[in-house]
Amino acid sequence: MPVYQCVTSGIDLTEEQRDRIATGITTIHHDETNAPEPFIRVVFTPLPLGLMYTAGKVEPSIIINGGIRYGRGEVIRRAIMEKLHRLAVEVTGSPEDHVLIVVSDTPNGWAMEAGIMMPEPFPEAEAAWFQALADKLPARFAAASAG
Amino acid sequence: MPVYQCVTSGIDLTEEQRDRIATGITTIHHDETNAPEPFIRVVFTPLPLGLMYTAGKVEPSIIINGGIRYGRGEVIRRAIMEKLHRLAVEVTGSPEDHVLIVVSDTPNGWAMEAGIMMPEPFPEAEAAWFQALADKLPARFAAASAG
Amino acid sequence: MPVYQCVTSGIDLTEEQRDRIATGITTIHHDETNAPEPFIRVVFTPLPLGLMYTAGKVEPSIIINGGIRYGRGEVIRRAIMEKLHRLAVEVTGSPEDHVLIVVSDTPNGWAMEAGIMMPEPFPEAEAAWFQALADKLPARFAAASAG
Repeated sequence: MPVYQCVTSGIDLTEEQRDRIATGITTIHHDETNAPEPFIRVVFTPLPLGLMYTAGKVEPSIIINGGIRYGRGEVIRRAIMEKLHRLAVEVTGSPEDHVLIVVSDTPNGWAMEAGIMMPEPFPEAEAAWFQALADKLPARFAAASAG
Repeated sequence: MPVYQCVTSGIDLTEEQRDRIATGITTIHHDETNAPEPFIRVVFTPLPLGLMYTAGKVEPSIIINGGIRYGRGEVIRRAIMEKLHRLAVEVTGSPEDHVLIVVSDTPNGWAMEAGIMMPEPFPEAEAAWFQALADKLPARFAAASAG
Repeated sequence: MPVYQCVTSGIDLTEEQRDRIATGITTIHHDETNAPEPFIRVVFTPLPLGLMYTAGKVEPSIIINGGIRYGRGEVIRRAIMEKLHRLAVEVTGSPEDHVLIVVSDTPNGWAMEAGIMMPEPFPEAEAAWFQALADKLPARFAAASAG
């Protein structure tokens, strides 16, 4: 967590575009939540044209569907969403109305990374979570903290 | 929003069947929510047989997973679900127990279309949202209102 | 319901591995919820390497994303999650930090199997639901009860 799924239809992303979107999302999430996040995940699901319809008509589209930890608050969510929208438009050149952004909350008790439950949304719990990850996965956590 | 994802395994939908399902879902949502909705989205995710299991056994299946705006209420949700179930059975000829329908609420602050946040579930907020879309996307909004 | 989606990238599951994961998930859900569940569904979504990024880098990954009925409680959810994590690691041989588990609640009014709404999370409602399914689908329900 977080996980951002990027579903496209009729938009063939190149590897370079996927890289830009994945690193862009990672940077946006880092910047807005102000936290080292060793597990920011981005999943691409490319579909051919013809598998997405809008208002009953086939249309090229891009949906970015994020699941973030409960507790970030609406100001941070909205900032993330606005940046995701601009990123998708800029990287794909899509018209704005071909882009849907959804960012949902996931309660901490509903997600587990590397076998460790996500922390409650309080500083002490988050610090303990990072320490547990660092103890279990020292290489990954050091890379994320330095990133 | 709304977004209805239609995942199938072992059921090869023809283009004509996809059209019927996409326009059927669009009509169902229009009729039940009584609102012009320029962004009713339908996404098809076809999977080969063997990638869906029910009770531990491979089985052809169809899952329609809708995300609608919070605030519609349970009566409308149930009416949508019953119509989706019948639509899926009729178009695919599947047995009823191969069809799962899920329709979830998405809070308005969690979704953004064309860079504009979804409105709160009150008439004044919805009217302002439609006006903002109409100002930004006159062609699409006119088509949806006339549809 | 429940539905467990298993998304992999860069991990080519064999049919035998899918069978082990699907029957493993089915057993885990049965054992932890202590209920016959004729509609435990598992969906596999295989993606090639390059379509999942973690912390901005392409990485093989497995995400198991479950949707269970609201009302099971956090103790059962956590037990399910821990077993899912171990199952994924054992069957795929993945490092623990390539595995993300998410198990979400779905309110009973949001899901419909075989045209019948999911029951409220109380014993009387569940018994009535099983009876309705048994009346409508005698063969499937008998098999599940015996399983």
